[in-house]
Amino acid sequence: MSDTHPIAGSVPHPAEDALRERAAGLDAADGLGKLRDRFALPEGVVYLDGNSLGALPAAVPDAVTDVVRRQWGELLIRSWDESGWWTAPERIGDRIAPLIGAAPGQVTVGDSTSVNLFKALVGAARLAAPGRTRMLVDAATFPTDGYIAASAARMTGLDVVAVDPADAVSQMTPDTAVVLLNHVDYRTGRLHDLPALTAAAHAAGALVVWDLCHSAGALPVGLDAHSVDLAVGCTYKYLNGGPGAPAYIYVAERHQGAFDSPLPGWNSHAEPFAMNPAYEPAQGAARARVGTPDILSMLALESALDVWEGVDVDDVRAKSLALTDFFLECVAAYVPEGRVEAVTPAGHAERGSQVSLRTENAREVMTELIARGVVGDFRAPDVLRFGFTPLYVGFADAERAARTLGHIFG
Amino acid sequence: MSDTHPIAGSVPHPAEDALRERAAGLDAADGLGKLRDRFALPEGVVYLDGNSLGALPAAVPDAVTDVVRRQWGELLIRSWDESGWWTAPERIGDRIAPLIGAAPGQVTVGDSTSVNLFKALVGAARLAAPGRTRMLVDAATFPTDGYIAASAARMTGLDVVAVDPADAVSQMTPDTAVVLLNHVDYRTGRLHDLPALTAAAHAAGALVVWDLCHSAGALPVGLDAHSVDLAVGCTYKYLNGGPGAPAYIYVAERHQGAFDSPLPGWNSHAEPFAMNPAYEPAQGAARARVGTPDILSMLALESALDVWEGVDVDDVRAKSLALTDFFLECVAAYVPEGRVEAVTPAGHAERGSQVSLRTENAREVMTELIARGVVGDFRAPDVLRFGFTPLYVGFADAERAARTLGHIFG
Repeated sequence: MSDTHPIAGSVPHPAEDALRERAAGLDAADGLGKLRDRFALPEGVVYLDGNSLGALPAAVPDAVTDVVRRQWGELLIRSWDESGWWTAPERIGDRIAPLIGAAPGQVTVGDSTSVNLFKALVGAARLAAPGRTRMLVDAATFPTDGYIAASAARMTGLDVVAVDPADAVSQMTPDTAVVLLNHVDYRTGRLHDLPALTAAAHAAGALVVWDLCHSAGALPVGLDAHSVDLAVGCTYKYLNGGPGAPAYIYVAERHQGAFDSPLPGWNSHAEPFAMNPAYEPAQGAARARVGTPDILSMLALESALDVWEGVDVDDVRAKSLALTDFFLECVAAYVPEGRVEAVTPAGHAERGSQVSLRTENAREVMTELIARGVVGDFRAPDVLRFGFTPLYVGFADAERAARTLGHIFG
Repeated sequence: MSDTHPIAGSVPHPAEDALRERAAGLDAADGLGKLRDRFALPEGVVYLDGNSLGALPAAVPDAVTDVVRRQWGELLIRSWDESGWWTAPERIGDRIAPLIGAAPGQVTVGDSTSVNLFKALVGAARLAAPGRTRMLVDAATFPTDGYIAASAARMTGLDVVAVDPADAVSQMTPDTAVVLLNHVDYRTGRLHDLPALTAAAHAAGALVVWDLCHSAGALPVGLDAHSVDLAVGCTYKYLNGGPGAPAYIYVAERHQGAFDSPLPGWNSHAEPFAMNPAYEPAQGAARARVGTPDILSMLALESALDVWEGVDVDDVRAKSLALTDFFLECVAAYVPEGRVEAVTPAGHAERGSQVSLRTENAREVMTELIARGVVGDFRAPDVLRFGFTPLYVGFADAERAARTLGHIFG
């Protein structure tokens, strides 16, 4: 995808030859580099917005065509059984599970992240010890989490307390029922310490709900290993499920028996086709299902998950850090001093899989970058976001993106 | 789709020639008959399960391929603007609106029926006059409505009272806050009197929520004309949106300003991209949105709605009644007396677009019907359901279905 010519009209930067050579060497040594063939990417574009909408896996169009033409058009209603539609939410949940460190039977797919977060927060509030009154919510959270948390708290009688994750532990008081945190901050790309924050919440007797939207598929999560209680995440960023693809919810096995969903639709019933007027919740992850699963999007996601075959998330993480390191190095070389400031932490332990740069006129700068074939995105008020998706982004892409940014400032 | 030969191994019934001739005449005179070409239906099958999963509109596969390959694969993140993804929920809502008698700006598409019902019921409870304590719920409702109603009532402090719709008016007491009714009963096919029940609820000072899953697309609904407060429905039955296609919610314009959603996701924010930590609800139907819309399924639905071009719902209703009348007549002629009992009311004013027949061994009978190419479905404990979708089912289909049923009993 990266061009091999100097960008038209630009004066070559003195560092360019060396950095391009470095990039070529890093790409040649990259064990994940061949995975790019599993994606259909537009020509001539450096796509650094996979943390917003993941690229199209090459096998998805044919898979979707089969779902539409044969499974729906020919088999019709029979597909609920014969094409495995009914069991898709748990089957696909079990495909996502290893990417987030969960044993099978704890993840179900369906609904949006916001809806799953509502289930998780109300469920957590109902699992919490009686008498606890506070729900701690990451103050810098992606806004929908804050809005949904306010609704969940209002409907379960809790008070929302906004906390800076860096200071969250001090707020984990004995009256804290639930803690909602983002694993990676959507704006800054900061990675929060899931093991330590989870342990601290538990030490305070609280349950913790993690939002994995910006970490799942980019780095190891370790839900089971760190005894997370509940988690939610989307599938259209690093999991490449497609625009608005169904989200997922993780309910740790130890909580499933007591998990009390605020959205007990018929899909979560122990015997959904008995059409029983009395509600009896299903066992297992299916307890978090609600209504009829959205099959077209769900099976597009299932096909998209095939790109993970043979991929180790630890390798993805290693490449992600190498990519963001190299990008920051190229930015330092190409962009005149003082024009951008890295918002993303320099330390690996605190960095997700994106680089956020603060700059003046960020919106206009991003528009110009996109016009020059480097696609990131803008987040108000002054942030340029560059997502590094190790399955299909390489080091030459990182170099070209930084070089293009340098030209805009140069 | 209907065969033109006697079914192998069967003895011709004395009424067969006359009924087949009648069917041919009715099909020839059917102004909607040509619409069948707008669908891709399997050969040799009489599909009477469109009240469970509507058939595939012929234009949908190419539309979905364009969404996947070009809009997602090539335009990527730009499609949120350039391909109209962001505005799809309201745009498609306005396509559904005329089919349910709603002026534009009151319907939004997304989430499952169950999730929309939760929004509608909690929203209605919050709109109701203070001090009212009862939520009346159709006792014969599709179970998910009952389960979700119980959750909504629990979370808003109301008591659920199960009512027989025929007796619902007597239960509309001065302490009734919300009434939830099905327009057409999923099992029996009985059509409830939406105008009268809505007026009675209003006379009692209550709000009414209608579930339109089994009526929208099959008969006129008249939400605005009858001053309905809120309504929900699915799009995968008579609207042919595909398996698990997104549902819709109608919030009457007069209620929108005070509608207080329990699921205030970022898509319902007045300025979603301001990423403001404070929630400020959008005006209009968008206030009922939640998270990121499920684009693949949503745009499949949009394409599916093209089959309604130039179609008048009153004509659909007239054909539906003629089809179900004719089917009942054929059943009476072909099926030995005493073997089946019609559960669906004989009176047109009380009949939806399906015929339900009670019989012994209903599950086995339906399995045999399907094996012989007549696809209806079974609902526990003893009901055979036959859905008549006037856009693609004809009178010869009805005759063949009844004749096949007769052979099974004969």
